[in-house]
Amino acid sequence: MTKLTADAQGVFVIAATPFDATGALDLEGAARLIDFYLGRRVQGLTILGMMGEAPKLTEAEARRFALQVLRHVDGRVPVVVGVSAQGFASMAALARPVIEAGAAAVMIQPPQTAARGDDAVLGYLTAAVEAIGEDTPFVLQDFPLASSVPMSVSLIERIAQTFPSCVMLKHEDWPGLDKLSAIRARIGRRLSILTGNGGIFLPFELMRGADGAMTGFAYPEMLVEVCRLFARGESEAMLDLFDRYLPLVRYEQQPGLGLAVRKYVLWRRGALACPATRDPAPKLTEASRAELDWLMRRLERSLEHQRKESVA
Amino acid sequence: MTKLTADAQGVFVIAATPFDATGALDLEGAARLIDFYLGRRVQGLTILGMMGEAPKLTEAEARRFALQVLRHVDGRVPVVVGVSAQGFASMAALARPVIEAGAAAVMIQPPQTAARGDDAVLGYLTAAVEAIGEDTPFVLQDFPLASSVPMSVSLIERIAQTFPSCVMLKHEDWPGLDKLSAIRARIGRRLSILTGNGGIFLPFELMRGADGAMTGFAYPEMLVEVCRLFARGESEAMLDLFDRYLPLVRYEQQPGLGLAVRKYVLWRRGALACPATRDPAPKLTEASRAELDWLMRRLERSLEHQRKESVA
Amino acid sequence: MTKLTADAQGVFVIAATPFDATGALDLEGAARLIDFYLGRRVQGLTILGMMGEAPKLTEAEARRFALQVLRHVDGRVPVVVGVSAQGFASMAALARPVIEAGAAAVMIQPPQTAARGDDAVLGYLTAAVEAIGEDTPFVLQDFPLASSVPMSVSLIERIAQTFPSCVMLKHEDWPGLDKLSAIRARIGRRLSILTGNGGIFLPFELMRGADGAMTGFAYPEMLVEVCRLFARGESEAMLDLFDRYLPLVRYEQQPGLGLAVRKYVLWRRGALACPATRDPAPKLTEASRAELDWLMRRLERSLEHQRKESVA
Amino acid sequence: MTKLTADAQGVFVIAATPFDATGALDLEGAARLIDFYLGRRVQGLTILGMMGEAPKLTEAEARRFALQVLRHVDGRVPVVVGVSAQGFASMAALARPVIEAGAAAVMIQPPQTAARGDDAVLGYLTAAVEAIGEDTPFVLQDFPLASSVPMSVSLIERIAQTFPSCVMLKHEDWPGLDKLSAIRARIGRRLSILTGNGGIFLPFELMRGADGAMTGFAYPEMLVEVCRLFARGESEAMLDLFDRYLPLVRYEQQPGLGLAVRKYVLWRRGALACPATRDPAPKLTEASRAELDWLMRRLERSLEHQRKESVA
Repeated sequence: MTKLTADAQGVFVIAATPFDATGALDLEGAARLIDFYLGRRVQGLTILGMMGEAPKLTEAEARRFALQVLRHVDGRVPVVVGVSAQGFASMAALARPVIEAGAAAVMIQPPQTAARGDDAVLGYLTAAVEAIGEDTPFVLQDFPLASSVPMSVSLIERIAQTFPSCVMLKHEDWPGLDKLSAIRARIGRRLSILTGNGGIFLPFELMRGADGAMTGFAYPEMLVEVCRLFARGESEAMLDLFDRYLPLVRYEQQPGLGLAVRKYVLWRRGALACPATRDPAPKLTEASRAELDWLMRRLERSLEHQRKESVA
Repeated sequence: MTKLTADAQGVFVIAATPFDATGALDLEGAARLIDFYLGRRVQGLTILGMMGEAPKLTEAEARRFALQVLRHVDGRVPVVVGVSAQGFASMAALARPVIEAGAAAVMIQPPQTAARGDDAVLGYLTAAVEAIGEDTPFVLQDFPLASSVPMSVSLIERIAQTFPSCVMLKHEDWPGLDKLSAIRARIGRRLSILTGNGGIFLPFELMRGADGAMTGFAYPEMLVEVCRLFARGESEAMLDLFDRYLPLVRYEQQPGLGLAVRKYVLWRRGALACPATRDPAPKLTEASRAELDWLMRRLERSLEHQRKESVA
Repeated sequence: MTKLTADAQGVFVIAATPFDATGALDLEGAARLIDFYLGRRVQGLTILGMMGEAPKLTEAEARRFALQVLRHVDGRVPVVVGVSAQGFASMAALARPVIEAGAAAVMIQPPQTAARGDDAVLGYLTAAVEAIGEDTPFVLQDFPLASSVPMSVSLIERIAQTFPSCVMLKHEDWPGLDKLSAIRARIGRRLSILTGNGGIFLPFELMRGADGAMTGFAYPEMLVEVCRLFARGESEAMLDLFDRYLPLVRYEQQPGLGLAVRKYVLWRRGALACPATRDPAPKLTEASRAELDWLMRRLERSLEHQRKESVA
Repeated sequence: MTKLTADAQGVFVIAATPFDATGALDLEGAARLIDFYLGRRVQGLTILGMMGEAPKLTEAEARRFALQVLRHVDGRVPVVVGVSAQGFASMAALARPVIEAGAAAVMIQPPQTAARGDDAVLGYLTAAVEAIGEDTPFVLQDFPLASSVPMSVSLIERIAQTFPSCVMLKHEDWPGLDKLSAIRARIGRRLSILTGNGGIFLPFELMRGADGAMTGFAYPEMLVEVCRLFARGESEAMLDLFDRYLPLVRYEQQPGLGLAVRKYVLWRRGALACPATRDPAPKLTEASRAELDWLMRRLERSLEHQRKESVA
């Protein structure tokens, strides 16, 4: 399988990890979900991210799931595998076999224990790169809201200079638009930058220099279309489309609850056989489901309206 | 002046604190801003909240500003004054004179140093109530994203039971909809609940039992109108209106940057003579201002479109 | 093997996890270390605690190490196994087999993700007890300095009431003496309380009602003797002995560095074949080793002096 | 008054802030306490540090207290004034008048809001230096356990290079010995380094290159004597003396409770008229006071023993 390079672009959807109603890993469901994503024409897949409930899997389950996904994707799109772990031994025990099995890259987020200043983050990554292998391309995740690890522009610059195998940044700081502009301006080499946060700032992020999105919004076709419209320079059309989805993007963008929202919508759309999340995870109440149903109906109506307008 | 009661409803706008270009407190600007808010028919005002840059004022400045606002409002609407401080001596030194001068209530958020479990939060509030006076109505702010102090439903219940002078909750947890429903269901007495977070979930919060909003979104007339449509049972119209503003609500809802966004929009709308924030505060870059100008133009166009439609 | 009960007393030494110079798990070294500890007459053993570098082992390594220790101890003393993990699946995957293999109990510390108030901690433990099995006795670790999870006296009381299988508290808050007294006074049932923090407050903790120590100070014979002197009511002799070791206890009690200090002293004492710690872990510099050598020489001299005095 | 320079050495005792039993500031008590400290031959004084309960004073009280101390000291020793504040306006409002009144320097600790990486800390200090004045010498406090702001050796190096007015480091990281050695080795200019943490590592810190201590241990004469013995090269005698006090140093070194311990001992020694701390602060229980009385008796006995031995 081709390795990920700093030229990567487009939408790498963060894939959910399917469980059945008993909480068991649903490997067949994984195939179905992957087909759903590929049917939406995403450019890549990311598995075992935070929204993939990675920490809730045993190490054996994580390995099994990753290998199954890689087999099913079979090289059609690049697959990034999240390998954040409490220790480097566990990180290596996942990263080595998935790279061997054809993963395009692994994704690493420095943990809170590394949040002791810039040098500590660099020290952590030095050890992590040794664990995954110097030739393994990796995606650096910058998501301080979840990790409590702040990374300044100059730190990201130092990381890019120090580690040639860092080919991509998952930019997920918030607020992050000016930071994104600054990273683009400062880093003296090509680095792919995909953005997260459910895509809630995607149109502006593209205008600031992002190469696409790495997030798991349950309508990935919107992310793909927003990137396409941006590439064609149709800014107003891009925002028009995006804003129709924004009420749902916003609803999904609730820390903690977002995962359950996302799985519910994916289930309603037929992409998942079961919307179950593994404990510990907030469950959707009746009221939340009703709100989501309402928002989905309103979205459909809005898209219908748009279709009619564009026909007329 | 009438004191705040647990029956309070509507929109209590969080007022910005105006500075001039040198960073000095602009007391005349305060009058102009208050007039702008009152012209949007808000039901109340909150000053010296976090978005009021309270920690950046000296204690003397905070007192002077609060007294000036109270004088200018002169009882037309209730005014809540944020009195969060590093110590109880400072808290009392602000709370006592503003209550005397006619403030309807004070607002308190337990600080991170109190984040040692439920009992520690209660202990903190016991001392705070002693500092402000047992007869002084207070608003409890629940904003864990900023304060790092988690407050569960059962803790809020204990607080409501323990302190009769706690008349209002500024509900700003995120995600917070189910929590809001649970608080409403569990608390055995009347408690006014206003919501924050820039209003980004306001329609759902009203449906879950909130009494209104306490936030500083730069178009407070939208918050007022959403509450009115909700009260009349016009849910679809409520969302239709809200969703037009959502792109701006979302843009303003950036931790840290949001204050600069808000002041810029208020300045563009003529409510502020100067959009300056005091250091330390992120400043708006050229790119951010251009994005905001674009979003404001799109909002105007959308509102224009709506007006035409409703006429037609 | 007998299960741990709320009547447990004495010194449960936190065992180091031996690695060889390449960083590989040294299972033979484990046997040698266990023999060292049992030779110091400890009443129990705790493995895979934080000072046992548990997060640095893969799940497979942790299981192998625990089973090897249980085999070697072979029922001579009760063994507690730390099973804190990022997810409940991983926790169950370690807890179930070690209990089957004769572990006396498992140890759980609520993680930072549970630090959302008292109810969140209880919710976490409910799920954890389901994962390990309701019949599995467990030790609750209260170590907020490392975990960032505050647990008040009333929360610990609720935990003791809710979970009959919680038989022991590893009390490691700091400051903790008054809390210990309060826990003893408030909890309406028998609960074994062992204390941590390297033993730095052990004499006072015993006077406040602790049943012993669960810590890994590299001279466990001192901890055992302090408990014995306390039981005999010889308070001055207890402090006289303790204070001779205090300079080393203090030196070992350095967050982060303490593990390397402990392994170095155990190695110097012949209990470990190799003082290596797995990355990430601070290493001892030349200067630190010289300071430790000096402190060990001073301790020997002081003990020699005491022996002569007691003979005279 | 002479300004503090990077050549400062010795013991700068952190002075307690005396309150009377009602919680009111006791300005006369301040004079008595200062006399006690000067009688112990300390080389300097630091007021309004964290252990000086600075955040519990109103801004007006802090100013009044500082001016009173400066008047009473009247140039006999240099006085450092802590000016950490929530905002720069408040910082300037304290720093400017105390420098004018003869303070030798001010002390600044970057607050948690600045804990966003190395650049954020530098940005904070740039604004702080502007607030206090570029000519005002300042002490940088590095106390991450309390501040949650990590500062690496290379960050401290950058700070020393950037701000010529940074003349002293209050080194209070823990563990900190190797960091201290590294700072001394790396920083290319003279910088005074005094250490904190109640002095619990003072002998080693001196050996690693510290210039003295800045801490408030209630027996400052021990800190002074340890520095003297170190300067004379009498290492064993230095440790012999230090170890006699270590049980009390350790007891005082309890985060949160330490302040009450310190004030109690100062009161028992006649240095304070009243041991009261302002809320919020843990109070000493009967049991804690009994433990302290015991430790003080044991210390006296030990010192008596030493005197006899040295006479014999």
